Amino acid sequence: MPQYLSTSDRDFEAAFTALLGMKREDAPEVDEAVAAIIADVRARGDAALIELTVRFDRLELTPDRLCFSPGEIEAECAKVPLAEAEALALAAARIRAYHQRQLPRDESWTDDQGATLGWRWTPVSAAGLYVPGGLASYPSSVLMNAIPARVAGVERLEIACPTPGGEVNPLVILAARLSGVDRIWRIGGAQAIAALAYGTETIAPVDKITGPGNAWVAAAKRRVFGRVGIDMIAGPSEILVIADASADPDWIALDMLSQAEHDASAQAILVTPDADFAKAVVAALEARLTTLERREIAGASWRDNGAVIVTRDLDEAAVLSNRVAPEHLELCTEDPEALAGKITHAGAIFLGQWTPEAIGDYVGGPNHVLPTARSARFSSGLSTLEFLKRTTLAKMTPEALRAIGPAAEVLAVSESLQAHGLSVRARLERLNRG
Amino acid sequence: MPQYLSTSDRDFEAAFTALLGMKREDAPEVDEAVAAIIADVRARGDAALIELTVRFDRLELTPDRLCFSPGEIEAECAKVPLAEAEALALAAARIRAYHQRQLPRDESWTDDQGATLGWRWTPVSAAGLYVPGGLASYPSSVLMNAIPARVAGVERLEIACPTPGGEVNPLVILAARLSGVDRIWRIGGAQAIAALAYGTETIAPVDKITGPGNAWVAAAKRRVFGRVGIDMIAGPSEILVIADASADPDWIALDMLSQAEHDASAQAILVTPDADFAKAVVAALEARLTTLERREIAGASWRDNGAVIVTRDLDEAAVLSNRVAPEHLELCTEDPEALAGKITHAGAIFLGQWTPEAIGDYVGGPNHVLPTARSARFSSGLSTLEFLKRTTLAKMTPEALRAIGPAAEVLAVSESLQAHGLSVRARLERLNRG
Repeated sequence: MPQYLSTSDRDFEAAFTALLGMKREDAPEVDEAVAAIIADVRARGDAALIELTVRFDRLELTPDRLCFSPGEIEAECAKVPLAEAEALALAAARIRAYHQRQLPRDESWTDDQGATLGWRWTPVSAAGLYVPGGLASYPSSVLMNAIPARVAGVERLEIACPTPGGEVNPLVILAARLSGVDRIWRIGGAQAIAALAYGTETIAPVDKITGPGNAWVAAAKRRVFGRVGIDMIAGPSEILVIADASADPDWIALDMLSQAEHDASAQAILVTPDADFAKAVVAALEARLTTLERREIAGASWRDNGAVIVTRDLDEAAVLSNRVAPEHLELCTEDPEALAGKITHAGAIFLGQWTPEAIGDYVGGPNHVLPTARSARFSSGLSTLEFLKRTTLAKMTPEALRAIGPAAEVLAVSESLQAHGLSVRARLERLNRG
Repeated sequence: MPQYLSTSDRDFEAAFTALLGMKREDAPEVDEAVAAIIADVRARGDAALIELTVRFDRLELTPDRLCFSPGEIEAECAKVPLAEAEALALAAARIRAYHQRQLPRDESWTDDQGATLGWRWTPVSAAGLYVPGGLASYPSSVLMNAIPARVAGVERLEIACPTPGGEVNPLVILAARLSGVDRIWRIGGAQAIAALAYGTETIAPVDKITGPGNAWVAAAKRRVFGRVGIDMIAGPSEILVIADASADPDWIALDMLSQAEHDASAQAILVTPDADFAKAVVAALEARLTTLERREIAGASWRDNGAVIVTRDLDEAAVLSNRVAPEHLELCTEDPEALAGKITHAGAIFLGQWTPEAIGDYVGGPNHVLPTARSARFSSGLSTLEFLKRTTLAKMTPEALRAIGPAAEVLAVSESLQAHGLSVRARLERLNRG
């Protein structure tokens, strides 16, 4: 049964703390197997990749078949029906427009001492994007990962996408082409992450790897972190909806189910000051649930991880939401902007009843790769910034060095770093000699 | 012996690739011991912390002595000589001024479809800063970690600093006070990281942990990552200097030694198109080396990890530097700005001969916590941004939903996510009904 809590319950704090601490995902222990796969790909390159692809994806490849050819890409794209192709193009354009606004500016200024300071942003040279095969092979995720990389100016963009038994989702290929990806590799799992991080005879190594994946992919990303940059390790999806009686219970129910249908470990939480409204949402949700294709998954998610919390007022709802730090937060209240002002931790906020979370998954513009498992307390969703890095710049004039160098020398000496002090002192002495 | 390479050598590429792949650090395997310590602190809280502090720091504490009292802080600060106190205050002011400029702006706009989009930055609520004890207890690192957090608006800032045998560096305490730290805890090692991440009876948990530390601290940070945010795991320090004959060989030698003196695994590399200049720098370096207090450490670093590379020209020097992606890059050439334009990967750039790297360690203003081990290819130094996170915002009007909702529905259906599609469809139907 989903949990029903009220902040007026005597044991509310304990129950809410338990809800916060819930571990929704039991990742299988694959770390040792993953370490062996990575070592194998590092040692034997393409040969290992090809053997592992037979083993895991039941697919026989040769080095020149590892990569989709331009003709194959063309043929897959041609299979996409017009409505889907147009929808993907609209999504790509909106995601691109949003992420272009995220491009940060370089800065440079000269301070009162004459020191010129600043910073400069430069793109990562090459990025690899992992795209799961099978059921979770989402073209929208291709757009959400590849477009920010391209907007950032990443020069080389590789996709790894397993094609179990040779099957591929044509929309994934079209999404890759719309995003300007350079190459698509028919590889998956830990072996694909190893190939992207270390390179093989045919695959050039990248500097940053992003994209979702199963436990094997996640373990491999953790292992290659440091050698390359990675994005977050995403957990199961989650939504928290704060709603009042101004919202339509059926719409809220559908928004909650659109998280629940992702995965049995997904979580949907309703927080409302209105107990009757809460009942209406639950009734609508259970009615809709029976009609869904994915009713087993969504039902398990709702039963095991769902929650409804009745609060005294909307302020209290905001406080609880901030403690959850949800990945997705819908504010379906009369004045969503006022409520948004009280939100301190959330991956993405959807304001008002005309903004179902699903809009953000596809065509809103903001990224749908967002921090899960309460990590919105300290991290952000994917953005253009994740494919850029900042280099700080400093230039002293002789006058600036005369003004601030002595303090640096004092601190260097206090830290017993004599050469640090001497590197300043030698220059100051030249100045003093005139 | 340091390595002497020339790009005109026939085996240059192999030798340079080997230099890039050099593993300079052999971190001891402490992961299992660290896991046990973290589990112990989670299970037994303060009691575990106190026992572990006896074991590792030879210091008997009680729960109310875990934290420095205001009187103790006052007493330590009073011990700092005036010159050091003034130098620290100057450094703090300059670091604060630089990091204030890094505060990003919120954005919001309404697009042609009537969708209001944007994002908002909010600070992490609480941060913990690790400060090593003993020799590597650097007050400058306190400023470099704590000031960006405060500038970002972090409300609660805790320091963990072991005091082996009860000894503490008064400058560290003063630096903490200058940075506006809330509390300083006399704890260190993996147990301190566990206490900051999970909390104990007396220590409230934080959301983000930054700061340098030994192998135990690094392993603990890796383990608590996900529960809290962490900064990078820093490797040994490194500098690459690109210089031409316009530079003073003695100054360059001192700049290189100021990396080498940090640690035997530190690395200093000179890249120059002028073979005679290279010889002069090496001669100056070896002469200075004999006079240094830390000559054993600096000498081992230079012998085992130092390198001199003679290139055809400065353009080639820039290309090699980009392949290294050094933590610190000094450009001591006649036109450093022109050369900087060719640099794509570096943690921090120091321009011209009046800007020794040591200025950046203390009083320049930019952060001295920078990406090591070639990770400047994909990551940035510490900044105000690392203590903020971004929440994306989206609000649809009925018109906006009518314009872009159908595309979202098409994509949801193509991804077999029916409830996603229905959540859009239900709203569109209301609109169609009028």
